[in-house]
Amino acid sequence: MREVFQQELQEVQNGLVDIANLVAESIEKATRAFNESDVSLAEEVIAEDPRIDQATVALDELAITILARQQPVARDLRIVVSALRISASLERMGDMSTHIAQLARYRFPDKVVPKSLRGTFSEMGRLDVEIARKLAQLLDNEDVKLAEEIRNEDDKIDALHLSVFDKVLGETWKGEAIDTVDATLASRYHERFADHAVSIAKKVQYLATGDWVPES
Amino acid sequence: MREVFQQELQEVQNGLVDIANLVAESIEKATRAFNESDVSLAEEVIAEDPRIDQATVALDELAITILARQQPVARDLRIVVSALRISASLERMGDMSTHIAQLARYRFPDKVVPKSLRGTFSEMGRLDVEIARKLAQLLDNEDVKLAEEIRNEDDKIDALHLSVFDKVLGETWKGEAIDTVDATLASRYHERFADHAVSIAKKVQYLATGDWVPES
Repeated sequence: MREVFQQELQEVQNGLVDIANLVAESIEKATRAFNESDVSLAEEVIAEDPRIDQATVALDELAITILARQQPVARDLRIVVSALRISASLERMGDMSTHIAQLARYRFPDKVVPKSLRGTFSEMGRLDVEIARKLAQLLDNEDVKLAEEIRNEDDKIDALHLSVFDKVLGETWKGEAIDTVDATLASRYHERFADHAVSIAKKVQYLATGDWVPES
Repeated sequence: MREVFQQELQEVQNGLVDIANLVAESIEKATRAFNESDVSLAEEVIAEDPRIDQATVALDELAITILARQQPVARDLRIVVSALRISASLERMGDMSTHIAQLARYRFPDKVVPKSLRGTFSEMGRLDVEIARKLAQLLDNEDVKLAEEIRNEDDKIDALHLSVFDKVLGETWKGEAIDTVDATLASRYHERFADHAVSIAKKVQYLATGDWVPES
């Protein structure tokens, strides 16, 4: 029984890594579509989001089947419950990435943000891509050093998020209302993307070390 | 054993109703603080959010204890897993309400949005309060008619959300960049608040009818 359980847990872990890789691919393409006003790439991201959704539903069903069949307790139980939560966060990360792609699609053939903000958003995108890649690695190898790095990158994203508001509300801002709306939304999506990654990283850290970190 | 399980499930359900009532109170106050630029009410909402967070953590721990001790299967297992998800959504609804209160606090003594949008936001707030109250009732009595009503009200919120963008991007918009940012964020928070309620309502409907509705 124990051996079957370990094997099923391994399947759950592999599933989470696969979804995280899909999310990393999605944010990488969404960022490129956003930076380069590449509408067909944006549409690819939007079209592929249901794959992430389906993968998380399948993973949840697997986790629920394990709960029913193996009836895990203590740490084993918390691993399976954490997997359900991690899957929900990954699903939302895919949504954020899709929203970023949607902004690129709506504004095509124009760029989403004016020149003065492009460097900021390209940096936010770069960090989110790095965070997503590290998250996939972290889910795979549970190296808590990666969790630390994800948190540090999230701090950088938060600082960039604030800098977007400073710029948009500053005296030199010449953007139209649509630029202000898009910059606000895009910045919020990047920030939420990174927040979800941090919340997943905390859970993995708990699983690796046994230190329980509450949800909020 | 079965009787103990039913009693524990009842405890979970009561816990969810209590949290939903806290959320309803929170969005009611946040909306009032937003509409009336009431900074002390806004601060009350912000100060009370940790109560919602703590209540969801406690409820999650109860649900995990039930999984460990009762080892439910089939429908019983799905009820407990759904409770974990509902609690996560309620926690986020509390966050959205807090964000709305934060906007009111930041802009005090000014109003958050210019006159031309006040009617729209007061209507969004009214609908979100109604949704939250109906959600608490729905969690209590599992009357699926309420789930339907919540979905209809969410449709109205979505329409209002789009109308905010129409107004902000229209030719008659005279708002400053800060008005555009705040209107964008406030509208997004209201829309997400209602989305979470719909996702909870779907889960309750599943629990009441047995029709499984996947996460996304």
